[in-house]
Amino acid sequence: MATTVKEQELPAVPGDGIVMSSRVRLARNIKDKPFPGWLKKNQREELFSLLQPAIKSLPEMSRPSISSAMDSFSPLEKQMLVEQHLISREHAAKNSGSGLVVNAEKTLSVMINEEDHLRLQAILPGFQLENAWKAVDTADSELESSLNFAFSPSLGYLTACPTNVGTGMRASVMLHLPGLVLSEQINQVIKSVNQIGLAVRGLYGEGTEALGNLFQVSNQMTLGESERDILNRLLKVIHHLIDHEQNARQKLLQEKSRMVADQLGRSYGIMLHSYSISSKEALNLLSLLILGVDLGLWPNSLRTKIDDLFIHTQPAHLQKAAEKKLGAEERDAFRADLLRDKLKSIPAPNIKKLKIA
Amino acid sequence: MATTVKEQELPAVPGDGIVMSSRVRLARNIKDKPFPGWLKKNQREELFSLLQPAIKSLPEMSRPSISSAMDSFSPLEKQMLVEQHLISREHAAKNSGSGLVVNAEKTLSVMINEEDHLRLQAILPGFQLENAWKAVDTADSELESSLNFAFSPSLGYLTACPTNVGTGMRASVMLHLPGLVLSEQINQVIKSVNQIGLAVRGLYGEGTEALGNLFQVSNQMTLGESERDILNRLLKVIHHLIDHEQNARQKLLQEKSRMVADQLGRSYGIMLHSYSISSKEALNLLSLLILGVDLGLWPNSLRTKIDDLFIHTQPAHLQKAAEKKLGAEERDAFRADLLRDKLKSIPAPNIKKLKIA
Repeated sequence: MATTVKEQELPAVPGDGIVMSSRVRLARNIKDKPFPGWLKKNQREELFSLLQPAIKSLPEMSRPSISSAMDSFSPLEKQMLVEQHLISREHAAKNSGSGLVVNAEKTLSVMINEEDHLRLQAILPGFQLENAWKAVDTADSELESSLNFAFSPSLGYLTACPTNVGTGMRASVMLHLPGLVLSEQINQVIKSVNQIGLAVRGLYGEGTEALGNLFQVSNQMTLGESERDILNRLLKVIHHLIDHEQNARQKLLQEKSRMVADQLGRSYGIMLHSYSISSKEALNLLSLLILGVDLGLWPNSLRTKIDDLFIHTQPAHLQKAAEKKLGAEERDAFRADLLRDKLKSIPAPNIKKLKIA
Repeated sequence: MATTVKEQELPAVPGDGIVMSSRVRLARNIKDKPFPGWLKKNQREELFSLLQPAIKSLPEMSRPSISSAMDSFSPLEKQMLVEQHLISREHAAKNSGSGLVVNAEKTLSVMINEEDHLRLQAILPGFQLENAWKAVDTADSELESSLNFAFSPSLGYLTACPTNVGTGMRASVMLHLPGLVLSEQINQVIKSVNQIGLAVRGLYGEGTEALGNLFQVSNQMTLGESERDILNRLLKVIHHLIDHEQNARQKLLQEKSRMVADQLGRSYGIMLHSYSISSKEALNLLSLLILGVDLGLWPNSLRTKIDDLFIHTQPAHLQKAAEKKLGAEERDAFRADLLRDKLKSIPAPNIKKLKIA
């Protein structure tokens, strides 16, 4: 598919505000070895012993932050890795014979013996899909010089699940779309993006139920198209979605500025004065704080602080901070205490900028 | 029915915190005159001309704040009178031939040609049922010296609706029961009070749906009992309800202090930072502020200020303050602006007093 849209053509900041993170993963398998689901325990461990050193020999992995078999993690540590999007929930359930290697910056990670022998992933903050692709492509090429990947000249890379055969690539971005949600356009947008062969789903929940107004957009097809074509198609759609979101925000500011003020003010007021907040509610409240930064009601310097709270209010990260296991009710209390503490140094949103009647 | 409970036996403050207002009304009709519903327009006007001077001759009405036929009020003024509980919604729909006389303090009011020829009402803030009864009883006795009321030796006072025949008295208090609502005991309490022949209903809405946690308790029977017996029975039940509510609050503080802190904090945070609040939401938010005062998280001096907001956030009062007609959306905006303005001088609740874990 031809495309004329390039990532660099759009200014970095608007895309960065709406694209929260960019991710590309490649599924790879070793030639003539059964897929992990068919490997016996000792075979899996044997393969793990072969793959782990190969991955650690990547230049990018010279000083890994993590390089372990899955049985070396506590349940809490596994859950934290899931919350950081470094492993899948399925991989968290694995033990010896499966493993994880992560680079120092936690931007490149490899799951060993998840569904496929290797799942290489690059994850970067903001709109950096091109950089994520380069990182994972480089690692893949380097690994290919030492490992013999299962590859068919007619199909491409072979994978445990047919939906990954071909490029084995899944490229995705996490988009923050409060404008489309507040203006009730999101379901229509999701529908039309799905129709052109890309998957859009709420990061937590579906459609308008999406928590934190966060949506993941990714390619569904891996077969019959080059990586470049898939990426270009995805980039084109992401740019359209960014435009849509910006238009929706503009329209809300023009026509429903008081509603926007109300939503932002309430989120701030609730976070500053609550004593119990569920993780679902926290995502929605934080989403509106991010929107407030995007709209200039808070200084841009708050952005990273709020971004961090998306992860640090998740159950495992909370328990890590509390240094103990917490039940659901205790987590909600601890989460509210954390948010009150973080919010107290943040002034009320500068609502005057919204010029409400 | 015998009773040993007297209003004076309980300390004034707890009852005053929970009993928001006390009201007694008497239905009276002039002998040998058809009830208002059967009067032709000219007959109604003629009767009004007879009754209005009689009422104005009461010592209490020497300088009335209102003394008019219903056609002299604008729709907004009528709605304000309804919101102040000085007239019924039915009376607001009346015009010439019906009227209203209210004393200077707005504690004693008489509707002329509502359902009955006269509806005398005394309404007082706090737990003052005895004083309300005295005020309305005094006015009734004085009127009886100049007017000939329809009275049957066997039945008592005759009224348009059989449910009022006898004493013609409806005594009621408005109770603020957030403890029983938050601890989910309210429906059970309502059921048991109803079973002993008293009516409990949400002031706005029913049961647990009651807005602002406000409930009206009143006698249902008017026949076969003296006013004193009815009042004593009602007082006894009110004292029980006050005890129940206080126990529920105590238990919440002991067992669910964080939930209480969360509810109070959220109410404060929302009111301080919202830009659109419906009248229903305002009632619920204000209810929790009142609870906060009762629990000592705000100084008692705030009580009157918050009490006033219950009335001043009602639709007609808002429009009066705005000096123009407002649509529903405009009212919600104006209400939020008013509440933000009133709240900004009120500090955050002193949650430490709740001793949450």
